Amino acid sequence: MPKTSESELGAIRAIVFDTFGTIVDWRTSLIKALEEFGRKTDLEAAWDHLVDRWRAAYQPNLDRVRTGELKWTILDELHYSALVQLLPEFGLTSLRESDLRFLTNCWHRLAPWPDVIDGLRRLKKKYIIGPLSNGNLALMVDLAKFAQLPWDVVFGADLFRHYKPDPETYLGVCHFLGLEPEQVMMGAAHNYDLKAAKALGLRTAFIQRPTEHGPGQKTNLSAEDAWDIVAVDLVDLAEKLAT
Amino acid sequence: MPKTSESELGAIRAIVFDTFGTIVDWRTSLIKALEEFGRKTDLEAAWDHLVDRWRAAYQPNLDRVRTGELKWTILDELHYSALVQLLPEFGLTSLRESDLRFLTNCWHRLAPWPDVIDGLRRLKKKYIIGPLSNGNLALMVDLAKFAQLPWDVVFGADLFRHYKPDPETYLGVCHFLGLEPEQVMMGAAHNYDLKAAKALGLRTAFIQRPTEHGPGQKTNLSAEDAWDIVAVDLVDLAEKLAT
Repeated sequence: MPKTSESELGAIRAIVFDTFGTIVDWRTSLIKALEEFGRKTDLEAAWDHLVDRWRAAYQPNLDRVRTGELKWTILDELHYSALVQLLPEFGLTSLRESDLRFLTNCWHRLAPWPDVIDGLRRLKKKYIIGPLSNGNLALMVDLAKFAQLPWDVVFGADLFRHYKPDPETYLGVCHFLGLEPEQVMMGAAHNYDLKAAKALGLRTAFIQRPTEHGPGQKTNLSAEDAWDIVAVDLVDLAEKLAT
Repeated sequence: MPKTSESELGAIRAIVFDTFGTIVDWRTSLIKALEEFGRKTDLEAAWDHLVDRWRAAYQPNLDRVRTGELKWTILDELHYSALVQLLPEFGLTSLRESDLRFLTNCWHRLAPWPDVIDGLRRLKKKYIIGPLSNGNLALMVDLAKFAQLPWDVVFGADLFRHYKPDPETYLGVCHFLGLEPEQVMMGAAHNYDLKAAKALGLRTAFIQRPTEHGPGQKTNLSAEDAWDIVAVDLVDLAEKLAT
């Protein structure tokens, strides 16, 4: 399949980014935060394994909402209930409500990958930039403030009451920005996300994040389709878009 | 009526601002833009009077949407149709579609009052800041990029499909930010806006903009109720909130 020509990429006005994995290194940040929580509360657990299991509950829980099995529920609440379900498996049975809320809120304080701030600042000069994440708006706003992400606009899944890859999310962004799909680029480290965006006519940029899931990552190591751009990071994306 | 105590103001986490009049000086910016348009197109008209009449159509048109007389219509489209209706009155009958769109889009490029950038930067250190305007999201995003407003989040009336002072707008902000009304402050140069916010439990800051409507302004020259804070501008607001 031929790639989109440069002149077609010239129509792009906005770039929206997946956030967990693409913009922030959730795994390293969460392991650090949970280990520190363990030291302060004198609790021992396999915190890194807990983080991986916590994230593994993400897609099945989103799918329960997407299929209608579960009524609309924001990601903060899905994170909370997944944590409650997981804790006994890790021998953690004595946590208080305030601990559960503290741990859930660790998802609001995640560090960006090292290239992100520089890359976004460059892209912002030419494009409208914002997150299109499955996180709820409050979570995305806290995350942006913590990581100092220079967004022009912030989208959360609760604006659409749909989770990616439902079309309502990608088309909702186009609608609110008053742009046609071909004027909007989706940037993500996950092929499934770009596949859904592309099917609706958006432009696509694959951002390689080969250690999102740690050193042994098996998925999303490379582009699985002819995405418009494949970039090693956001600075590389800015270069490739000549910003 | 006693003012809110300082400790109650300590609960505030977010401040949302009315935009046209409170943040940007729409009148001066539009008169300048329309006069320049007149010079370029060799058209003569009472541009300043046209701007005032254009803005005067604003509230009646919003009210037509709010009462259900008109189906949901974004502000960009209300601006466009109000302009089309007004032009014959000013002897302007030869404008092309592209001219009409250009003039409507002048609302996307308005200069902030001189205190705004400094004030917002200071408030941003302590609070989540964003616009809560009757403008649609695309308009608010363009405006923020043009005026370099350092928002953390951008709300547009189209997120709620309601115009202020409908409760759905103020409560929608609280809902999406995951905050209680008393944790959110509304900042506006218009008493009606603060009245609606206060009735729902939000905190209120009146920002004095005595020349929003030009030198002969008759309305909103002073606070008409015991708003939590009355400030001469956004730097003064930052001072009064000790940021």
